[in-house]
Order: sequence, then structure tokens, then C-alpha cells
Amino acid sequence: MPPNTERTAKRTSNDMTEVLAVLRQRFGDRLDASPGICRQHANTLTWHAAQAPDAVVFAASTQDVVDLVGIAQRFHVPIIPFGAGTSLEGHVNAPLGGISLDLSRMDNVLRISTDDLDCTVEAGLPRGRLNSYLRDTGLFFSVDPGAEEATLGGMAATRASGTTTVRYGTMGDNVLGLKAVLADGSVIETSSRARKSAAGYDLTHLLIGSEGTLGIITELTLRLHGVPEQVIAAVAGFPTLESACRATMTAIAMGLGLARIELLDPMTIKAVNQHAGLSLDPVPTLFLEFHGTAAAAREQAEIFAEIAREEGASNFKSAADESESRKLWKARHDALWAAREAWPGRDALVTDVCVPVSRLAECIAETEKDIAATGLVAPIVGHVGDGNFHAIVMYNKEDASEQEAILAFSKRLAERAIAMEGTCTGEHGIGQGKTAYLRAERAGAVDAMAAIKKALDPSGILNPGKIFQT
Amino acid sequence: MPPNTERTAKRTSNDMTEVLAVLRQRFGDRLDASPGICRQHANTLTWHAAQAPDAVVFAASTQDVVDLVGIAQRFHVPIIPFGAGTSLEGHVNAPLGGISLDLSRMDNVLRISTDDLDCTVEAGLPRGRLNSYLRDTGLFFSVDPGAEEATLGGMAATRASGTTTVRYGTMGDNVLGLKAVLADGSVIETSSRARKSAAGYDLTHLLIGSEGTLGIITELTLRLHGVPEQVIAAVAGFPTLESACRATMTAIAMGLGLARIELLDPMTIKAVNQHAGLSLDPVPTLFLEFHGTAAAAREQAEIFAEIAREEGASNFKSAADESESRKLWKARHDALWAAREAWPGRDALVTDVCVPVSRLAECIAETEKDIAATGLVAPIVGHVGDGNFHAIVMYNKEDASEQEAILAFSKRLAERAIAMEGTCTGEHGIGQGKTAYLRAERAGAVDAMAAIKKALDPSGILNPGKIFQT
Repeated sequence: MPPNTERTAKRTSNDMTEVLAVLRQRFGDRLDASPGICRQHANTLTWHAAQAPDAVVFAASTQDVVDLVGIAQRFHVPIIPFGAGTSLEGHVNAPLGGISLDLSRMDNVLRISTDDLDCTVEAGLPRGRLNSYLRDTGLFFSVDPGAEEATLGGMAATRASGTTTVRYGTMGDNVLGLKAVLADGSVIETSSRARKSAAGYDLTHLLIGSEGTLGIITELTLRLHGVPEQVIAAVAGFPTLESACRATMTAIAMGLGLARIELLDPMTIKAVNQHAGLSLDPVPTLFLEFHGTAAAAREQAEIFAEIAREEGASNFKSAADESESRKLWKARHDALWAAREAWPGRDALVTDVCVPVSRLAECIAETEKDIAATGLVAPIVGHVGDGNFHAIVMYNKEDASEQEAILAFSKRLAERAIAMEGTCTGEHGIGQGKTAYLRAERAGAVDAMAAIKKALDPSGILNPGKIFQT
Repeated sequence: MPPNTERTAKRTSNDMTEVLAVLRQRFGDRLDASPGICRQHANTLTWHAAQAPDAVVFAASTQDVVDLVGIAQRFHVPIIPFGAGTSLEGHVNAPLGGISLDLSRMDNVLRISTDDLDCTVEAGLPRGRLNSYLRDTGLFFSVDPGAEEATLGGMAATRASGTTTVRYGTMGDNVLGLKAVLADGSVIETSSRARKSAAGYDLTHLLIGSEGTLGIITELTLRLHGVPEQVIAAVAGFPTLESACRATMTAIAMGLGLARIELLDPMTIKAVNQHAGLSLDPVPTLFLEFHGTAAAAREQAEIFAEIAREEGASNFKSAADESESRKLWKARHDALWAAREAWPGRDALVTDVCVPVSRLAECIAETEKDIAATGLVAPIVGHVGDGNFHAIVMYNKEDASEQEAILAFSKRLAERAIAMEGTCTGEHGIGQGKTAYLRAERAGAVDAMAAIKKALDPSGILNPGKIFQT
């Protein structure tokens, strides 16, 4: 079963004139076809070349989305949902042209229940703003991919995760239900507000990670967590990457309830030292966080300190206060920017493999060897408690042979992870760049995915050119 | 989009002669068409009338399942997957005849990783046997629907949960990946063994809860948890059902990490006292369990005792030892049998609504009033930490007016839960009896489900007559 995108071929600008007129009539000045705005809505953060849409529609309601889908169906025009544009895999590119559907104006918090530990929000709400909003409730939304501005709809659509996933889970674990507009213009709610249900197929999880290809998420009901009584941040430097990984594996195997455990290699440490004004030893380092009651958090920190010592860590150190802790985590989240600053003028390809934690040390060691043998500049950071790590490959976009070398490296890395029972993408998604790896990883299951795509979006208007090979 | 079962009309026994001959040739004495065996494989535990298959095939491998699917496609014969037959919603019934696919001989543990806290098992393995198998590893599989003999494949297919779900989650949270045979005979693996992945559509969760209508699960990779250092079981009696519910709501809202919190109403307490030789006060009672380090479990128990006291509980009491604790939980899990013993000769209809925890007290109170007004015998038990409760309606199957009354009660209860933003089924599934409620609850989303069903099983051979209205 081939993915069904061929029916939505790229239109000429002539074709688009009528479409834009109809859109203008419905959306007024919330339609913007200026080149600057279109370019802004194409992918800019990554190695993928930008492919701008023909126009951008700023939606203000689910009904707007329904009407846009109707128009897109009528004219056979692609819709590319857009949140904040922080995707690293070209999800917001418009390879066949079409309309970028900007959901950032749908940013309301619709309800919060402190009794049920949940809330309902519009899809364009940035996760940072949700947490600001929650500040006085004693609750927080846990999924933390780094970018404060990432929208909750975009995070659900790409099955995002991040530094706290080792304890609190991915978007899949923290979205209780979705409102979405399907390709036929119908509006569905995927779930009740009950904590669990066995009522029919799990459309919530089907939409999470579907990258805008099955439906357009307009509202989300999210699980919230109580702010822990005590948060202890800590840093531990290790003699080797392997020893840092082994310490991680030991902690995971014993079920120690770490809230965060992030690896930074020496090259990353140097870059973040410079970027964030820190003075960490340039050795393989774990950034950690322990959540719980005061006693429980302290107990976890002490147990981990012992594990780290046994692996030769020289300097396990808790952050002195909240401000030092915040500084550490900001430095970690800014690693990509630190790398860009350290290698100015270069572009970044960020890899994203994830393997069983028991294979992590081996996978990182082989990747380090590969990086050295290939002669790449590629600092490594990782959500190592999940077995997920990123090589931030800094390269010169203008140099064709260098581009070829880094793509070959990225392919070897994906194949290595798949061979170790892992995945080519822990959290960034398939988008445009990993369609071949998806096939290598999931084989015939991709045909089932394509059949579902075809059933729910027979004319292929929803984010064509993503997930499936074209 | 109507569900696609009409193409698989019930066959005459004449048609079946050739099918059985072909099956006999392939499966030898692992095909059994004797009436006794066929009757055993139809639904017996519930109010649904038994509808026996034409024959039973005992599969020993995924290849057996592939070959059976091929034969079923060739002759257009339904396949009804069967694990242990503990379903309460008619999932194993064969309304259109066909072949019951008994997976109970596929009961091997294929691998365990104590480093990754996961294992891979065949679908026919009973959950009780998995936990016996794990005993020396310090790990356990958490989902506990009561029945020790429930198979892991069946539990996944029905998105089962149970007493420990409040802490450890449902099957959806504890299945990392599946091997399944689809209707076209293809074998797919839905996931790698990495802890998380953003690689394409989430077919794992799509199959979990699909009740054998989208594919036949043959292997599962499961998340395991470390056996807690300390387990404290406790019992608390309350003046009213509402006060017991309020205590639950308070504990959930404050994020107290309860491992189990089960409500038994006075009628249930009387029945289990008699069945299990206990002498609990016949008042609304919570059975509780706290897991953690010794200090953490004790801390939780103390906090809950205080909450219970504030709600007027007179007798919060920890179990003296493991044997008393085991006795309590066995009594809870045997509630259905206790009810059958207390009202001999009657049949049971077990309801299964689930509402947001904040609405639980209200939902149970209204249901109690309804039970009284209707004059039913219906003890109530519940996984109240999830907002899920069961009324065990004891009735006389031979009395048509009584049957009508209990079905009307069941309908009112489902409607009440749905009106309270809940679900008609927390964990038992839709099966045959709740197809109309599914439509009432999820509206247009059911059309999307039917489209997926049609895409993956166009000829409708996989467990027809379940989930969708026919």
C-alpha cells in the first residue's frame, strides 16, 4: 500500500489564485500570503531545506479549522499544521505547497481541575505559558522538550518528550484526550475525562505522533502532576561516557525514581560553559534531578551519589539553591544554541536515536568511534534514563561532501540503534528526513500505517510528504 | 460509515464442511469441532447468551495464526480470538459462527531483561503464571484485573486494568510493544524495545483495546516494575459511601501515591465476609495498599489514616502480616464469586462505568438511589482511585421483566457516567453489550474507528459483532 500523497500534486500559483480568494473571503486578514510570513512558517531550525507554503491561515477556533479543511478538500490543497515551528524534522515544511495552518492564536486555557489533576487547553498554547498559568495551583505539566514556546498541540502531534520523561512520561502518557478535526471536516473528541476507559479504539494515542497527517488537534486534555515538596538538582562528572551510562543503567535497573538524568559529553560541557557562564569540568557529566518529599528526594540523591562514586565519579554535587539549579537546567536546554555559538556559521543536524537502556553505553561508544573516524564535530547530549541521546552534528551546509558525510553518519546511527532493538527517533519524529528509517525499523507495520492514513485522509490533504516515503 | 460485518454473514453448517476439512489438514487434532469444546469457548461468565463457534483451533505459534487467517480469508469465516474466556462483555462469543482461536497453548516467556525492566511473552500466558515466573527477579507485572488466569494477550486486547492501576496504570501503560497478525496475514511488530519512540503511528495503543477486531496479538513486550521494599495493606470503614469517596478524592487530589484503593459497599462486605470467612464491619469500606520504601509506605499510610479520620472512618487498620493482607485481597478479587454464593441461582450483570474522580461520590450516590428505586440487588465494588466502579447486579435470567429492568438500569448508569464526562466502560470493554453506549459516548469518533476497521479488515473476518453496532 503506497502512501497516498500523489493525488495532491504541487499546484501552480495560477491554481492558487482562486483558493486564496476563497480563503480571503472566509478568513479576512487572518489569511497572509506574504513571502516573509510564508517563509517564517517553513522549517528553519534544521538541516532540511525550507519549503514555504503558499499562504498562512491563523485559526482562532475549531470552526475555523473545520472551514479551512472544507476549502482544502474542495480545491485539493495541502494543510500543514503549525504551532511554534520548533520541529527538527521538517514537519512544518510544505513540499507540495498549500496552506500553513497557524494555531498559535488558539492559546486559551479552557479549564483546570485541581481535584482531577487535569486541564483542557487549546492546541496553540505554549507549554511554558501553561506552567506559568498553573503556578498558584501547586500543579505542573511535566513534559519538557526544552523549548518553552513549543505548543501543546505540536508536542502531541509529534509525540514529544524530554528531560522529565524518565519519571513523568512522554506526551503519550500525559495527554488524556484530544479534540481534533479530521480530513472529512468532522470534529471528534477521542476520550472522556475519566482516567481510564476501554471504550473502543484508542484514537488519542493514534493522533499523538501522527504529525498532522491524520487530523488537526485543536484542544487537549492534559494530565497534571503535583509540584514535588522537594526538588534536588545535582551534577556528577565521570571518567568516561561509558561509566556515566553504566551509572544510569544501574539507577534505572534498581527503579530509582529519578526525575531527570541527562548526559552531556565533554564537548557539550565546554560549549555550555562558554554559553551559560558555567565552569564545569569538561568531562562526561550527568545533570540530575530528584523529586519527592524532602526525605525521599534526599534518599534518592544519596543512593545515586553512591552509584556514581562506584563508577568513578569524582564530583557529585547538589545545586546550592533554586537559582543555581535553574541555571544548570537552562544551560542543558540551551545546548543546541551553545553549539551554534561555539561553531559559528555552521548548521546543525540533530540525531535522535533511542535504545534499550541496557544497550546505551554500547551504542554511545560505537557512535563516538564513528564520529572520530568520520572526523565530525558532534557534541552528544542525551535523555539517558530513557536510552535516548542526540548527536548535534555541526557542519557546513555549503559543502556538498560534508553534507553527504553527515547524512551517511546519521544513517549509520539509525541503523545501529535499530540493530540494538531501538528506534531511529526517540522524540523528534519521522517528518521528512526519516521515512526510509521508519521502513527499516517497522517494516510491514508501515503498510498498516499507510492503510490508516488512506482510510482517514483519502485525498491526502493533511501534511503530505511526512512520515511516508513519497 | 457502517461497520463492515455484513459481508461475513453466518454460514450454514454445510458451508463449514469444506472449511473444517482444510483446517483439519493444517491443524490436525489441534482443530476441535466437538460441541462441548465449542460451547466452552463461548461466553459463559456473563449475562450475554452464549454463541458457540463452529470449531476451535489451538494455535501453537504465530505461523499457526497466519495460516488460520489465510484459511479464514479464503472461506470468509470469522476468527474469534480466545485467551481464558474471562471477558464479561461477550468478546469471545461467535454471533456469526466461525473459528475460535484458542491462544492458551502459546504461553512461553520468551525473554526477561532485569536491566531494562521488561519482558516478552506469548499472548496465551496467564498473568498469574508470569508473576510466578518473575518471583526470583525482584520484578513483577503490575496489571491486576483479579483473575489469575486472564491471559496477557486477552488483557491487552481488552485494555484491561484493575486494582493496581491507580498507581501502575492500565495495559495501555504497561505494554511496550506487540507482535500481531493482521487480517491480510501480515505479521507486524508495533514497536522497538526502546522505552519511547516517535516513529510513526502508535499501532501498539491502537491494538490495545481493539478487542481482536484489528489484529490478533501473538506476543507482547511488557513493562515490569521492581517489587516494592515495603507493602502495607489496610482497611478503613466509613459511615457512608460518600465519605469513603470523599476520602479517595482527597488522597488522589493531593497526589498520595496509593498502590490500591478499592471500595466495597456494605452488601459486598457481607458477601465477602461469608465467602472468605472474614468479619469486617458491614459498612462502606476501603481496602488500601501502600508501596514504597519502608519509610515512604508508612508515611503514606499515616497520611491516609488522617484523611480517613477526617471523613469519620472509625477503624483504619493495617493488616498484621502478609498472610492477612493476602486474605483481604483475595476476598476483594473474589467479590463476584462471593455475590454468586450469596444469591445462589441468580445471574450477574457487572456494570463498569468510570468518571472523573471529582464526580465519583455524586455518581455512586445517584446510582445507589437508582438501585433502591428499581428494587435491585446490586452490591457495589470499585477501583475508586481511578473513578471506576462496578455494580454487580444479581438477577433472575428466566424472568424477562427482571432482565428488562436490569438492562434499563445499566443503560441509565452508562448515560449518567457519560453525562458526568465519564465512560460507559473503564476496563471491561465494549464487546457485544455496549455498542450503543459507545456511539452515545464517542459520537462521530466511532465513524473514524469504523473507517480504521474497514481499512485493516476489509472483509470483516476479525471478531465481527464486537465494538460496532450491527
